[in-house]
Parts: sequence; C-alpha cells; structure tokens
Amino acid sequence: MKSSIKVLLFVTMLTLLASPAFAAKKVRWKLAMTWSSTLTPFASAPIKMAKMVEEMSGGDFTIRVEGSEKHKAALGILDMVKGGQYDIGHSASYYWKGKEMSTVFFCTVPFGMNADEQYAWFYYGGGMELMEETFAKFKVLSFPGGNSGVQMGGWFKKEINSLADLKGLKMRIPGLAGEVFAKLGVNVTNIAPGELYTSLDRGTIDALEWVGPAMDIKMGFHKIAPYYYTGWHEPATELQFIVNKRKYDRLPDNFKAILKAAMKASSMDMYIENFAGSVDAWSKMKSEYPNIKVKQFPLPVLKAMKKAADELYNSYAAKDANFKKVLESQRAYQKKAREWSTISEYNYIKMSNELKQ
Amino acid sequence: MKSSIKVLLFVTMLTLLASPAFAAKKVRWKLAMTWSSTLTPFASAPIKMAKMVEEMSGGDFTIRVEGSEKHKAALGILDMVKGGQYDIGHSASYYWKGKEMSTVFFCTVPFGMNADEQYAWFYYGGGMELMEETFAKFKVLSFPGGNSGVQMGGWFKKEINSLADLKGLKMRIPGLAGEVFAKLGVNVTNIAPGELYTSLDRGTIDALEWVGPAMDIKMGFHKIAPYYYTGWHEPATELQFIVNKRKYDRLPDNFKAILKAAMKASSMDMYIENFAGSVDAWSKMKSEYPNIKVKQFPLPVLKAMKKAADELYNSYAAKDANFKKVLESQRAYQKKAREWSTISEYNYIKMSNELKQ
Repeated sequence: MKSSIKVLLFVTMLTLLASPAFAAKKVRWKLAMTWSSTLTPFASAPIKMAKMVEEMSGGDFTIRVEGSEKHKAALGILDMVKGGQYDIGHSASYYWKGKEMSTVFFCTVPFGMNADEQYAWFYYGGGMELMEETFAKFKVLSFPGGNSGVQMGGWFKKEINSLADLKGLKMRIPGLAGEVFAKLGVNVTNIAPGELYTSLDRGTIDALEWVGPAMDIKMGFHKIAPYYYTGWHEPATELQFIVNKRKYDRLPDNFKAILKAAMKASSMDMYIENFAGSVDAWSKMKSEYPNIKVKQFPLPVLKAMKKAADELYNSYAAKDANFKKVLESQRAYQKKAREWSTISEYNYIKMSNELKQ
Repeated sequence: MKSSIKVLLFVTMLTLLASPAFAAKKVRWKLAMTWSSTLTPFASAPIKMAKMVEEMSGGDFTIRVEGSEKHKAALGILDMVKGGQYDIGHSASYYWKGKEMSTVFFCTVPFGMNADEQYAWFYYGGGMELMEETFAKFKVLSFPGGNSGVQMGGWFKKEINSLADLKGLKMRIPGLAGEVFAKLGVNVTNIAPGELYTSLDRGTIDALEWVGPAMDIKMGFHKIAPYYYTGWHEPATELQFIVNKRKYDRLPDNFKAILKAAMKASSMDMYIENFAGSVDAWSKMKSEYPNIKVKQFPLPVLKAMKKAADELYNSYAAKDANFKKVLESQRAYQKKAREWSTISEYNYIKMSNELKQ
C-alpha cells in the first residue's frame, strides 16, 4: 500500500472516531420493579418510560425493564439500585419504612393529602427537596413515579357499624394503615397476593384492602365480599423511580433531561390509566354484581382511626427528627391546600351531584 | 500542495459531512401563544416545554416562544400555525368555536368533566381521536397543553339569591358560559383584560369571571367585590398545543418523541403550578381580606343554568353532526366517570372535612 493512502486511511479513521456517533457512548440501563411485568397500571409507568427514553434518544439510551418474576426481589429494589445491580428501579417509597421511617411521606399516609395536594407539595411546597435529603444516605435519587389516586378502604364480608365490629376482625392491610387498625383491635395479617382470594373466600380473613377497581377487578374480591369501603388510608399512593446517583451523574446532560421528562410524562400517564381503568372496572363490577354496597366507615369509627393515626405519627416524630420535619411540612401544606381543594374540585362534584337530585 | 495531501483533505471533508453531526439538521421552530410572556402559569407550559426540548435534543431542536406582546394576534394562533408563520402554538381550543363549534369540547364546557375525567376521556375514552379528526381540516395536530382545574364562578359585588338577581346584571363572562347567562337575562359584555379592574370598580360591570386564585390575585378583584362564587362553567379548562402537521411530519422520529414528551410533562407541570399557585393565593387573599365570602349559586339558579346549557348543546347538536358526535361521547363518558370520581376523590375530601366538625 502506498504511504499516502495509509496516511489517508488513518486520518479518515481518526475523523470518524471523533465524530458524534462514536463520541456519544450508547447507554444501556437495567430497571427492576417491585411489580410483575403484567401488573398494570403500576408496571405501565416504567414500561412506557423506557419506551419514551429509547425513542427520544434515537436508540442511544435504552432501559431494560425487569419485573419481579425475573429478579425475585420485589422488596429489594432500593438495595439493588443502591448496590448498582440495577441502574434504576420502580417501586413505592413506603416499602422502605423499615430502613427510614420518613420515607412513608413520599408515598402516602392515612388521612394525608390527595394527589393534587401532594404533587403541589412535591413541586411547590418543598417536598422534592425533603425527598432528596431523605434518600441521600442511600446514594440514590428519588422521583415521583405515578399515582393511584384515592385507594378504596377494602372489601368486607360484613358491614362495619361500630368500633365493636372491628374487634377481632381478621384483615389483610399492610403498612401504617395496618398499625392504625391494630390499635383498634383488628387482627391484622399479611398474606401473599396469590392467596388472598382463597383466604377471603374460606374465611381465613374477613376483609382485605387492595387498590381500587382497576386493579381489584382482576382479583375477583367483588364476587365474594359485598361491602366496598371508601378510602382513608392511602389517599394518593405515589409510586417511585429510584435512580443510582453515581450512574445518573455520569449521564450526558441530554440523557438526564430525557430521563426526567420520560419519568414525569409516564407518571402522569399512569395516574390517568389507573383512573380510566377504575372508571371502566367500577362500571362493570356494579352492573355484574348489583349487590355491591359502597360504604363509608361510620364517623365514630373514622374518628377513632384518625386519632390512632395522629398518635402513631406523634410517637414516631418524638423519636425521629427527620420524620418530625417531613410530618410538619406535610401537615402545614395539607391544611392550606385542603381549603382550595374543597372550594374547587370538591365543590364542583358536590354541586353537580346536587343538581341530579 | 502535494496531491496526496489534497486527496486526504478531500476525503476527510467527505467523512465529516457524512457524519451524524452534519447529517442531523438542526431544527429551529417558533411558537406563538395566546398569552403574554408573563401570564403564568398559562405561559409556563410552552416556556418549560421549549426548555425541555432544547435540553433533551442537546440543542439540536430549539423552539423560540413568542407571547402576544410580540405577535399582537392573541386569537390568531390557529391561523398562524395553519399558515406556517409559526410551527407551533399554545392557546385554548374553545377560542376556535367561531370556525368549528365542536372545538369547545377539547377545552371545557359548562357542567362538563373535571380534569381527571377529561384526561381519562382524552387518553382512554376516544377523546384524542375525536380531537385529531376535528382539527384535521385545519391541517394541524392538537395536543393537551395544561389544565386550570375547576375555575371559579367569578367575583360579584352583590350576593345572588335568586334568578331575579341575575336579570340585568352586567357581567363580563365570555364563551358558552356567557351564552348560558344571557339566556337567564344577564347583560353579558366583553371587556379587555386591562380594563376589567376599573370597570368593576366604577360599576360599569357588576361581576366578572377570570380564572382562579392563582391568576385572579394579580388582577386585584378581591379588593372590590366580596362574593367569590364557586365554579360551574369551566370545570377543567384544557390549554392546547397546536402543531403545523406538515412541519411535524418532517421532524425526525426522535424529535417527534421529544416534542410529545415535553408537551405532556409541561402540561402536567402547568396543572400543578396553577393548583399550588391557587393554594397560596387563596390563603393570602383570605387572610388579607377576611370579608371575602365563598358562595355557591343557589340550587334553583344552578338548575336554570344547567337547563339553559343543555338547551344550548342540544340546539348546536341539531345542526352540527360533529358537535353531536363529540357531545354524545363526552356525555356518556362523564356519566360513567363521575360515579368513580364521587366514590374516590370526592368522598375522601367529604370524609376528611366531616372529621373536622
């Protein structure tokens, strides 16, 4: 080969290597989620998010989404993202209360804010900053990841008319809500999702809570427990994207922006998908099982639940400075925001329903 | 120059020109919005959208946002985007009712759906498809562009106790709501935003509606009209991104994906920004002007308003097939969705407020 051609080839290669296509490293991430891949609409948020990231980056940034059927560690998401086995996760912040109690506030708490109020708190009331501080010790970033809206209070085989009806009642209800019910004498148990229907059917439990019509309908509880209680314990369950901070910091700026926009847009999608799913599922349940009775717990029962919840919060706050800090931030914001929710969204539905009477 | 070096330079240039940086044309778009650049949070949606697009594309796709102070054609957005003077616009679909009556349904209508219900209709109830069909004749694409939530019924100098109090009342209230009020004997006028405060103060008008606390507080109406009526006429005003279809079709796929994600994420942001802004503004108004009275119109007045609205819809539907088609789609979805809204979000606020009593 002539030396001039050799030089030419060498320079051409150098030019190619310096060009953006070679300079921009392809990024391949893996995401682990608490849910199985078919548990929509929870799983829809990370699945749609990954699709958006791939499309927006022209395939240069891809995220492989793995459900619990693959990694077998539904409640190990925070550990796996922290440890770097996964770059990103999708879960719910209240699953980490064993590691850090204040994480419950970035998901939902009994008698807490609804979705509008909580998003306003996150983005305009200091919530995002408190969440960043709280998760810093895990070396991860946390972002809102979709919201269930107000969850239903659960399916009961018998009507609850008084506090006495709660004593000894066997119910599957996890988390803080379970702690509240336990204080009122409920025999709180935890049962694997796959065994819930049979347990309720056979009377191993008398009641259970799951999510809302969109997700409950697949479980079939409405066929065997006619009382469907309205919500009090999970008014706005915010799902969560957890990102390994070191991996995030290494992303080029445009990929950071793509990831953030995709998380936000897919979170909104999931909220709407769940709402629309509940609209359809409730309509179907009600027409196929007209004996389902929607009930609100009696006021004395609700008052006892609220008192028990406040006592719980105050006792955690007394021994945990960060819990106290976030609790106070949420309480103050909720008080202010509820005034506006009541005048606007609440009053509109109230007025519309009065017109039908 | 040696001929080998000439060849080398030539090949290097060819290689560079063929590299992605040169192949990917930079896209420069211009956006016109109905609002002035300072009319937040309406203007926030396109401003944030453009910022996201620029960041996500690494500066290869930029959108210059121009407010009404620049283009002087607040209500000419659809024409300007259709004609190609602007590539994209930000406005509200009900401004085009003079061109196509059914466009009102992609914004908001009196006694219509709230934001949750309307978003569910758009994405899971056939709304996006109906919007695409409706706007096809203008050769533009339309996308949701943020939402005001339930707007307030307006500021009144005197309390409305009966239908008789509406007769001859001079009020600024545009659109379908104005047509409804006109049927009830209200003297409906339109007045430029800059003259509203003075008109209300001097008694040229007795009442007006604007948006809600976040935007009303800057106008100062609460200082001169103590009755703040709850909403009925704009339960979920959806703003709108209008995109020139020919320009959109020419975008590379990744820029299409970037644009769509940015529109969706910035729309959600705007909804939350407005909600949070109203939370703060209402809190401030109420503490500085404790004599403000929040009122719901009396039920007989609301019933007459609802009847007038239904008559209006039916009369438009009788002479406009597309209006009829979209009306029927919304009526059916609203009926179904309202059941779920009532059980979930509405009941939660009702229950929480009962606990305080």
